[in-house]
Amino acid sequence: MTANNQDSHPQNAPASETTSAGRRPVCILGLGLIGGSLMQALAATGRAVFGYNRSTVTVDAASDAGYDASSDVMSTLRRAAAEDAIIVLATPVTTIEPLLSTIAETAPQCLLTDVISVKQAVAEKVARLHPRARYVGGHPMAGTSRSGWDACDPTLFRDAMWMVTTADDTDADDWTAVAHLALAVSAVVVPAAPDAHDRAVAAISHVPHLMAADTAAVGAGESNLALRLAAGSFRDGTRVAATAPALQRAMIEANDVAVLNALSEAIDRLVQARDELRDSGSVAALIDDGHRARMAYEEMAARGREPIVGVDVGTPGWASELRKQAHEGRVWLG
Amino acid sequence: MTANNQDSHPQNAPASETTSAGRRPVCILGLGLIGGSLMQALAATGRAVFGYNRSTVTVDAASDAGYDASSDVMSTLRRAAAEDAIIVLATPVTTIEPLLSTIAETAPQCLLTDVISVKQAVAEKVARLHPRARYVGGHPMAGTSRSGWDACDPTLFRDAMWMVTTADDTDADDWTAVAHLALAVSAVVVPAAPDAHDRAVAAISHVPHLMAADTAAVGAGESNLALRLAAGSFRDGTRVAATAPALQRAMIEANDVAVLNALSEAIDRLVQARDELRDSGSVAALIDDGHRARMAYEEMAARGREPIVGVDVGTPGWASELRKQAHEGRVWLG
Repeated sequence: MTANNQDSHPQNAPASETTSAGRRPVCILGLGLIGGSLMQALAATGRAVFGYNRSTVTVDAASDAGYDASSDVMSTLRRAAAEDAIIVLATPVTTIEPLLSTIAETAPQCLLTDVISVKQAVAEKVARLHPRARYVGGHPMAGTSRSGWDACDPTLFRDAMWMVTTADDTDADDWTAVAHLALAVSAVVVPAAPDAHDRAVAAISHVPHLMAADTAAVGAGESNLALRLAAGSFRDGTRVAATAPALQRAMIEANDVAVLNALSEAIDRLVQARDELRDSGSVAALIDDGHRARMAYEEMAARGREPIVGVDVGTPGWASELRKQAHEGRVWLG
Repeated sequence: MTANNQDSHPQNAPASETTSAGRRPVCILGLGLIGGSLMQALAATGRAVFGYNRSTVTVDAASDAGYDASSDVMSTLRRAAAEDAIIVLATPVTTIEPLLSTIAETAPQCLLTDVISVKQAVAEKVARLHPRARYVGGHPMAGTSRSGWDACDPTLFRDAMWMVTTADDTDADDWTAVAHLALAVSAVVVPAAPDAHDRAVAAISHVPHLMAADTAAVGAGESNLALRLAAGSFRDGTRVAATAPALQRAMIEANDVAVLNALSEAIDRLVQARDELRDSGSVAALIDDGHRARMAYEEMAARGREPIVGVDVGTPGWASELRKQAHEGRVWLG
């Protein structure tokens, strides 16, 4: 796969990107699974996209595949400033502080977004280290248990939910530009406040990772006989425990407050189930609650995307109305 | 699909079934997902197979598809006795007590096995209600979240692990006959003592079901926004929560002692992770343990089946040697 079309068809933007903001180049900092896949996906739409990665191995691999990548962060950011690029932070959350300071010095006017799996912590770091930033946070709910450039996939975001930070003081044009990045790679936009996002991903991603690790540890701790007998419930329930531990830890630990709350609820429910099983021989409450919850999830998935309707971004109250409809499970399709 | 070949090729048994025991007819009591699939799978190999189900709807459906099914338990068992059939108990564990008493009266000489997901509780009921039974327990680790005759699939057992009870006083010919039932439908035999089996399935099936229910309940309890954002970790980690609650409860509650132990370990590990996250901002211990465990599982799966070697069933110490090798993850391929 090459990205030559990014050079040969620089004006060939999708129909949905009708504003000049939609044609701004995109500068991606960090070319791991998410950043690299985003580079490939945007290039495939004809969008001008360039990126930085600290590892020259990754930069060489990206360059060999025809992408515009550099291991020089300063020259990359100077270019972003000169071209008024949208900057996408795609490095682990633990490494963004020096990057934010450098962006604040070198490309302070550029619209800034990110693809990091927590939003409160990133927003706080941005406010502290780049207080005048034009920042709209993002989080594509996509990934695999693999990582790095070799795992990148330009179709990774197809039909994925892409949370876009939506606060009352968010600039409407900047919000639209970030939302259109997500739409350009066939993702679906979910508007949310940073804290609501963090609670939601704790409940449906970070705690599930901890539960998968727990399930795996208990199973393997029993015996090789147990692992040999393991079938669907173990295989599926522990799949994400295969994700690189550093990646899992980074996303879970960065969201510690929300994870502590959701994990405590998960523990409480298990303790109640244990007590009920010990005292009355029944696990009805937990099994019934879990079944109802899974049915609700499947019904929502079967209904498909229900679009947010009746909101013109930029008109009074737009941000709160987007959040309200998203809280009910609706998505923004542009 | 029809089972006409069971009538037209009654002697066309697979090559592996070289004993007269291997050609005995099979009488299946209960034609739900497991019993019905076993009937279809055995019929497809040319084995003579007939069955009983309480529901006439199921019996009619089976009969319409060409299978030999009856809703009359007494005549079915009298036929089993007359034909020296192997009887397979395939009803929920909660319903086997009256069946065992009836078998003890009507077909006491028949070799008896079962396909129920716990083994200590079944063995105790057999010892109490049919003390002179020739009983060798079984448990095919196969299933879907669907149930009933309509969900039956003659390929359900292909490559599935089929645990066969292997105690020091197990009769070698009876053990071989039951093991060959599993091999005949392309399953893989795992010899184990009843208590070792129950601990293993608690750890890799019953607790994973409780964890899936817990994960689902916490996720859905947050908001519809959360469910809308849910991606792979939630989808895979909660899949088995879709299983009919009655089926989940029956298997978990029947294995209560082993489940209480494994569930307590699962809770302890989660509590330790919560404390570590709260006190030091880290979830390293649980994530690392889980990752190691999942890798061990994947490595075992990648190595494929390692056969039990050097054991002639029936020679001194055969049962304990089978169990020992199975404890290390090996399987019996006949």
